[in-house]
Amino acid sequence: MKEINHLLDIIRNKKSALHQKDFLLTWEQSRDELEQVLYLAEALKQMRAGNIDTRIFNNGLGISLFRDNSTRTRFSYASALDLLGLTQQDLDEGKSQIAHGETVRETANMISFCAEAIGIRDDMYLGAGNAYMREVGEALDEGYKEGVLPQRPAIVNLQCDIDHPTQAMADLAWLKEHFGSLENLKGKKIAMTWAYSPSYGKPLSVPQGIIGLMTRFGMDVTLAHPEGYNLLPEVLDVAKNNASASGGSFRQVASMEEAFQGADIVYPKSWAPWQIMQQRTELLRQNDHAGLKSLEQTCLAENARHKNWHCTEEMMARTKNGSALYMHCLPADITGVSCQHGEVEASVFERYRIPTYKEASWKPWIIAAMILARKFENPAEILAGRVKAAVPRIYK
Amino acid sequence: MKEINHLLDIIRNKKSALHQKDFLLTWEQSRDELEQVLYLAEALKQMRAGNIDTRIFNNGLGISLFRDNSTRTRFSYASALDLLGLTQQDLDEGKSQIAHGETVRETANMISFCAEAIGIRDDMYLGAGNAYMREVGEALDEGYKEGVLPQRPAIVNLQCDIDHPTQAMADLAWLKEHFGSLENLKGKKIAMTWAYSPSYGKPLSVPQGIIGLMTRFGMDVTLAHPEGYNLLPEVLDVAKNNASASGGSFRQVASMEEAFQGADIVYPKSWAPWQIMQQRTELLRQNDHAGLKSLEQTCLAENARHKNWHCTEEMMARTKNGSALYMHCLPADITGVSCQHGEVEASVFERYRIPTYKEASWKPWIIAAMILARKFENPAEILAGRVKAAVPRIYK
Amino acid sequence: MKEINHLLDIIRNKKSALHQKDFLLTWEQSRDELEQVLYLAEALKQMRAGNIDTRIFNNGLGISLFRDNSTRTRFSYASALDLLGLTQQDLDEGKSQIAHGETVRETANMISFCAEAIGIRDDMYLGAGNAYMREVGEALDEGYKEGVLPQRPAIVNLQCDIDHPTQAMADLAWLKEHFGSLENLKGKKIAMTWAYSPSYGKPLSVPQGIIGLMTRFGMDVTLAHPEGYNLLPEVLDVAKNNASASGGSFRQVASMEEAFQGADIVYPKSWAPWQIMQQRTELLRQNDHAGLKSLEQTCLAENARHKNWHCTEEMMARTKNGSALYMHCLPADITGVSCQHGEVEASVFERYRIPTYKEASWKPWIIAAMILARKFENPAEILAGRVKAAVPRIYK
Repeated sequence: MKEINHLLDIIRNKKSALHQKDFLLTWEQSRDELEQVLYLAEALKQMRAGNIDTRIFNNGLGISLFRDNSTRTRFSYASALDLLGLTQQDLDEGKSQIAHGETVRETANMISFCAEAIGIRDDMYLGAGNAYMREVGEALDEGYKEGVLPQRPAIVNLQCDIDHPTQAMADLAWLKEHFGSLENLKGKKIAMTWAYSPSYGKPLSVPQGIIGLMTRFGMDVTLAHPEGYNLLPEVLDVAKNNASASGGSFRQVASMEEAFQGADIVYPKSWAPWQIMQQRTELLRQNDHAGLKSLEQTCLAENARHKNWHCTEEMMARTKNGSALYMHCLPADITGVSCQHGEVEASVFERYRIPTYKEASWKPWIIAAMILARKFENPAEILAGRVKAAVPRIYK
Repeated sequence: MKEINHLLDIIRNKKSALHQKDFLLTWEQSRDELEQVLYLAEALKQMRAGNIDTRIFNNGLGISLFRDNSTRTRFSYASALDLLGLTQQDLDEGKSQIAHGETVRETANMISFCAEAIGIRDDMYLGAGNAYMREVGEALDEGYKEGVLPQRPAIVNLQCDIDHPTQAMADLAWLKEHFGSLENLKGKKIAMTWAYSPSYGKPLSVPQGIIGLMTRFGMDVTLAHPEGYNLLPEVLDVAKNNASASGGSFRQVASMEEAFQGADIVYPKSWAPWQIMQQRTELLRQNDHAGLKSLEQTCLAENARHKNWHCTEEMMARTKNGSALYMHCLPADITGVSCQHGEVEASVFERYRIPTYKEASWKPWIIAAMILARKFENPAEILAGRVKAAVPRIYK
Repeated sequence: MKEINHLLDIIRNKKSALHQKDFLLTWEQSRDELEQVLYLAEALKQMRAGNIDTRIFNNGLGISLFRDNSTRTRFSYASALDLLGLTQQDLDEGKSQIAHGETVRETANMISFCAEAIGIRDDMYLGAGNAYMREVGEALDEGYKEGVLPQRPAIVNLQCDIDHPTQAMADLAWLKEHFGSLENLKGKKIAMTWAYSPSYGKPLSVPQGIIGLMTRFGMDVTLAHPEGYNLLPEVLDVAKNNASASGGSFRQVASMEEAFQGADIVYPKSWAPWQIMQQRTELLRQNDHAGLKSLEQTCLAENARHKNWHCTEEMMARTKNGSALYMHCLPADITGVSCQHGEVEASVFERYRIPTYKEASWKPWIIAAMILARKFENPAEILAGRVKAAVPRIYK
């Protein structure tokens, strides 16, 4: 209880305009706003641990719109809605790209008469996902202003073409838990590196999210990937600027070996080059199955030239004291377990399996915190009210 | 608060047997019963606006059974259930027509042990949808009488082959809001007209619902469509009889121009002739894909002869002061926006876009009101209890 | 109220370790544990009948994982979750068999951060379904022990390859209701018999569940099936041992006529021989469509030799006073109704139709009771608290 009240005090002291804007990219939020979300997530988690009901809403919908298959994110979002008292309702459009314009404006309003949140995952089309979320946001702004909607639902970016803010923020919450405080992250070396996987077309949003966020907290961020596996140039700029502002650093190196050298944290993960993602986007739009198949073959062949980007025990031995924290957004491609040759050696993964589960476990709390921060000007007071009421989560 | 209590007083004074029958066709309900639902919808909306929790049920299921794709109605129904505290559970039978008889009796009971409402959309098969709802109703009556079910779930007609009562009632609620009162609707001229669309097979339930309901409130209802695009003869009779009983009027004219002349309200919308729908029903039953394709071609060719049934600025200029209220159940086929040539000109639709959203926004409230009226003999007292308890919807 | 408190007293006196283990097979539970679940189900049902809210959880997820189509079980599970205040979230993996090992461990944790229950139906693969549930259970145990999960979700066996405990326990609750007490079941003759159906591949879990459970309560259980339609040998052993321990009996006979002779209860139902199910499992695993088709043909031909295994009026006349209680897990294959020639004659089924609905109606309560017993060491105290608080289920 004391701990929760302490967290609420910290939250009260953060200057935040999150109740007036959607949390679409971490680098659009101030440091205080990021911390507000982090501490709200912690407070909610503590409340539940203390058997205090975290529901703020007694009724209301939370809508989900997944344009890509998802189990983890779907369950995290569903959990977050449930924690807040909202009822999930899925908008199932199939996986096709929705027409823009009138359809978006209309649909956004038609589903939102009783909605408090809309979670969107749209990561397949480069240049489209984040833009779509903003288009939905504008439609909701208009509907609210014109009196169509009695409330403005919060948009939750459940992964777009540019950023994966719920993942990156959950990763940050995990690092804060693991290392004890945000302060302790200063100067920590994190290696965000490409790793070989027998699949292709994995989105860029995770590595981009990591370099875009961890550079905010004074960490020494190293990005490494084989030639050609570039991230979006504008996100590289974001990372550079963040690093110089926060007193951390951002550098790019050409091998996993170099990136792992002396690292406190490693995050080896496959992704596709953004130029390839751009071609893929065009082919998807043209519904060109033959072109997609051919692109996949080319990519897999290219990937196969980099099987040495493999998080092995030897590679881990290069890290600080040979015991860097291994991170992954899951599921990982584990050599000899989920595939013949993958991102990580089985013995490495097994050693860090439980930590990666704990890393993932922050997601529901981060999502719930983002919704709270968007819906209420003083979310700390909202939670304080529930802590005072102390309705049990379980009647036991 | 004062306003809510005033609404509850009005509801108390309505004589209603809705707690003893399902609301399947508007013309089976008395004027008082229709008004009871309208005012309950308003009271619920006011309660939510005043941050009063509208949940009447602390647990219980609301079942949905959609035999046709639906986004708007699905979300409206889900919202209504959530407002009342019921949990949605979807019965997904695919889109095939369920066998009747034992299967219906059994399924109706098997899904209803904890169900308080069953919403059904079944509009594809002429002569079947409304009949199916009654069959489900009889199975529920038996199950309740025999002690299988501890409660008799309310059936909500979410669109059938004959009527679309949640749409028509939401339209009425919107007209009441727009014109200030039901009294003000007396003598208002409404034009329910066919309009060209590049699709075919749109159900008859919307135009039938409109002429069947608006004639109850002393309005001057004009129906217009090209030769051959007839509605069900028995619904035309309903409209005629309603009009003479309510002091309104019902007439049919042969052109959009004539219908729009001096109209206060216009509702231009595509539908298929009922004779065609009957052929289509037969072909669907026989699973005759070639026949369906051929019927579609014939219909689209026939439709194309009537592209002049188009709600243009010129057409709107014919209405009362050139500014009739444009209505649509959405989505509209907008010329140059959602199709090359459609029901309505883009500039007309854009001017009335927000009003059509507000029209649609009444649906969740109407559905919730229908469930309340079916479940409780004195729904006003039920709401009065919640108003007095004043549990907040949002803890803020 | 008095009745509920009496039931709670009975529950308090049962010795149960169900809060420490999943209820996966009825024969792994003690007699007291079975009775604890039975009486909890009754108490919950009484509470709802008395308009007392049965929710124990104010938030939390209940996950469903159906590897076979299901309407009845799906709705029963959804109802049970709703009764307890849990929110259903479906894990849709398609119908394919999930890889075991790391995928199971990881998925089990990823979906469970806020989960209180996981209901699994996995009855298609002989030797796999029950084993899979135990594998999930071990993953959950590890996640809980390692601090990944703040709670250990209850696993509910919604039908596996070996047992169908929610069905068998609901059947037992129905027999208790019908005959007045568990005591009254002693010495009652129940005939679990095969019956002809025009389909094949029906799981063994229902007949195995019945002979495995009813032999616990001193009943005289007769199993009858055509030559070759064997159940799992280990379950036959379970039934024999149960019978000698409980003072009942278990015997196998070779004809429906003999089994029905003097029976108090008959349960005629189709199933596939376990040797066939084993072949089918292999073919399913190899995705051998031609082999499956061919196996189906062989089986249907074999089935067709036993059309005389038919629950006719003549057959029923052999039972005690010609009026044994007919039971079925539904849906039954009814001759002349759901098929040309099936398990039961239409007039017999019609006479027992409502009783079979009542039989089925116990399922939500049994499932909710199983969850309560797994989650709380003293479930009677939990319910006593809700009875005392007496929050109404419906505000009326």
